[in-house]
Amino acid sequence: MELLQEMLEKNEEQLEIIQKILTWTPEELHEEIEDIHPVDLLEELEHYEGEKKDILNRLPDYYIALMIGELEDEDKYELLSLFSKVREEKIISEMASDDLADLLGELEDSVQKEIIAKMDWEQAEEVKELLTYEDDTAGGLMATEFIAIQEGMTVKETIDYLRKEAPSSETPYYIYVLDEREVLKGVVSLRDIIVSDDEIVIGDIMSENILSVPVDMDQEEVGRLFEKYGYMVIPVVDEDNVMCGIITFDDIIGVLNEETTEDIYLLGGLSEGEEIDSSPLDAIKSRLPWLLVNLVTAAMAASVVGLFEGTISKIVALATFMPIVTGMGGNAGTQTLTLIVRGIALDELNDKNTKKILIKELVVGVVNGLCLGIIIGIVAQLWVGKAIFGFVIGTAMVLNLIVAASAGYFVPVILKKFNVDPALASGVFVTTFTDIMGFFFFLGLATVFVEQLI
Amino acid sequence: MELLQEMLEKNEEQLEIIQKILTWTPEELHEEIEDIHPVDLLEELEHYEGEKKDILNRLPDYYIALMIGELEDEDKYELLSLFSKVREEKIISEMASDDLADLLGELEDSVQKEIIAKMDWEQAEEVKELLTYEDDTAGGLMATEFIAIQEGMTVKETIDYLRKEAPSSETPYYIYVLDEREVLKGVVSLRDIIVSDDEIVIGDIMSENILSVPVDMDQEEVGRLFEKYGYMVIPVVDEDNVMCGIITFDDIIGVLNEETTEDIYLLGGLSEGEEIDSSPLDAIKSRLPWLLVNLVTAAMAASVVGLFEGTISKIVALATFMPIVTGMGGNAGTQTLTLIVRGIALDELNDKNTKKILIKELVVGVVNGLCLGIIIGIVAQLWVGKAIFGFVIGTAMVLNLIVAASAGYFVPVILKKFNVDPALASGVFVTTFTDIMGFFFFLGLATVFVEQLI
Repeated sequence: MELLQEMLEKNEEQLEIIQKILTWTPEELHEEIEDIHPVDLLEELEHYEGEKKDILNRLPDYYIALMIGELEDEDKYELLSLFSKVREEKIISEMASDDLADLLGELEDSVQKEIIAKMDWEQAEEVKELLTYEDDTAGGLMATEFIAIQEGMTVKETIDYLRKEAPSSETPYYIYVLDEREVLKGVVSLRDIIVSDDEIVIGDIMSENILSVPVDMDQEEVGRLFEKYGYMVIPVVDEDNVMCGIITFDDIIGVLNEETTEDIYLLGGLSEGEEIDSSPLDAIKSRLPWLLVNLVTAAMAASVVGLFEGTISKIVALATFMPIVTGMGGNAGTQTLTLIVRGIALDELNDKNTKKILIKELVVGVVNGLCLGIIIGIVAQLWVGKAIFGFVIGTAMVLNLIVAASAGYFVPVILKKFNVDPALASGVFVTTFTDIMGFFFFLGLATVFVEQLI
Repeated sequence: MELLQEMLEKNEEQLEIIQKILTWTPEELHEEIEDIHPVDLLEELEHYEGEKKDILNRLPDYYIALMIGELEDEDKYELLSLFSKVREEKIISEMASDDLADLLGELEDSVQKEIIAKMDWEQAEEVKELLTYEDDTAGGLMATEFIAIQEGMTVKETIDYLRKEAPSSETPYYIYVLDEREVLKGVVSLRDIIVSDDEIVIGDIMSENILSVPVDMDQEEVGRLFEKYGYMVIPVVDEDNVMCGIITFDDIIGVLNEETTEDIYLLGGLSEGEEIDSSPLDAIKSRLPWLLVNLVTAAMAASVVGLFEGTISKIVALATFMPIVTGMGGNAGTQTLTLIVRGIALDELNDKNTKKILIKELVVGVVNGLCLGIIIGIVAQLWVGKAIFGFVIGTAMVLNLIVAASAGYFVPVILKKFNVDPALASGVFVTTFTDIMGFFFFLGLATVFVEQLI
């Protein structure tokens, strides 16, 4: 019902904006299109059943460039290639260097070269440089459109320069001060410039203690810096502190989401590449390997049960109760694991608190184990009619919850030490531990007390 | 090793910045402190073993106000209360309204009133209004320090006004155009103003199609809008479109993280309120209820096994193999569940693709089920020495993976329909389904074929 309602609303909106574009005079369109966010138009176009080219042909080049910028990397070229060769060139000249690099990164070498040939020399150089950086580094995220000035300039000169340059820069709100070798010396904000008198020299108002990131920094680390400092933009420099580009906050929200989705997927046993609308074949490729690993670990755990088939054949109730011991261990282990994996991702686990957290997890494991052990012990005793049965399952539960706390803590921490993503497969490891040890404690204790249990 | 290294680095840095503050002359400090990010100083203070007040007393009021703004809400008052009553008043007057509201929100009514009494009339009114909004709504996030102008003003007049107002506003980069009733009419960016001639009238360059959010919008929804449009700031309005405040991107990164942590925690069986450094008691309160729910569901699943004790006593190998069927069902169900929960959180599940995704999940379930079923069937057959045993476990595996795909899909979707967070307890539900049905399929089929199996 809700979904249907949403769909109907979407159709109304659709009529609203696309209809406008189709009926505006060229003058109205020129005036009004600025106020329509490309994301909204893209959303409507996706639902539009008519000829999309009729809409696109009415839009100015710079607006198409913005729309391409908003698309997923793999969809960018599809939109660009809808246009004639002449128009394609015009749109390319309006595009930001980082969007172009993202677009080209998805294409084959020959098509890349064809598109680069359409750029002017400066743009081609910038884009070719951006293509050399890995996708998931600061270099892969940055745009090269920033405003740079010299420290000797006055506020008045800067404002005049800004009037020329602001329209083409990614963000005009921070202006970077470079020396003659393009080394980053400082930054002034447009706020500082607006409140300063015309004759003031930039060198006197610029901030010199400026955070920059190296081109090869991992995007996740860049994301954490944005989070920590709340900056709107961070400059990117090479090994000689020469300024290469800027990363803006809007690029980072996507990165943080991507990294979190990766963690959630890994914790849930999905490969990071899978998407909700992946094909069944891709989904199987993403998941079957995990399930096969799980099958092997499940078989290992089962083989522990196999060792005790003699005991089980004497006391069949063991088969009924054993999944409870392993299941609760798995759940408790996953709780600890979740906390630690998220803590590592958010950088909350540090030298000062690791030991404290480990001790806390063990205490929690013991206490929760005692609570669950006593409850299940009483239930099992009433069910089977033997006090010793209750003692066996209760003790196994306590022991397994201590294993759960330890595995939930150490598995991600050790993976991290080896520079493996702590979310990767940690769930499989933890439940393997709790399954094997759970069966072992419960069936082992039962074997020890087998005479009293029969 | 790595942690130790980090610790040593931290100590070096500590000497570096705190030492500077202790040795600078008041003039140097006044000049240089602007370039030190409050977050960095807070981090050092946390590690500083000496008397913290010696450092704090050297810092200007506005800088203390910034530091308080960067702290977690529950720690804000602790820092403020370190100062004398006179100084406290000065620091309060430098604080942003949203930071003050966050600080007050954590305190008891009597202390709240005491602090509000120290504010000037205007600030007190603003803060009192902010306190009326729920924490997790647009009103709870917004700051009231924005720059508002009338549409009749010229660019020159606006710049003059900005020179006065910019220092006290949260962000001077977007300037809001209000009518005499303070209704939001449009927005101009500082970029537009810089590139326009002095005599231009604001009404001619302002953008009228402006996205605003109502004060009571849920913060998660506000976060998704920031993500979608990449805006730096979004204005907040009341039901009459009167402008109340602004939300900036840096507030949102925290919100998005908070919401994701909540989802990850719920998926992992932790309560949203738990933190990595919670006390053992809080951790037990967060987790034990989940484990008790799990204990009940595990007992339900175990009671299914109990129904078949007769069969198990005849074929003990069933006890060995049954955890494999339920375990794999749980893993496959968690995979689907993870994908759907994240898809709902990122708003990727819509009217157009729900059916397609359900069909995909079922296809994946069948194919993965067949692969796993055939493998485990062959292994079981070799182990037990009976082809029919392989057939029974293989068939149970295929059926259970179809249950897993269905439960992984429908549990979060149905929770969402009832406006419950789809991450909440969905893991418990899904594994309960796969456990119960897994035992039922495997032991039930074994009972049907019991004569051939013995």
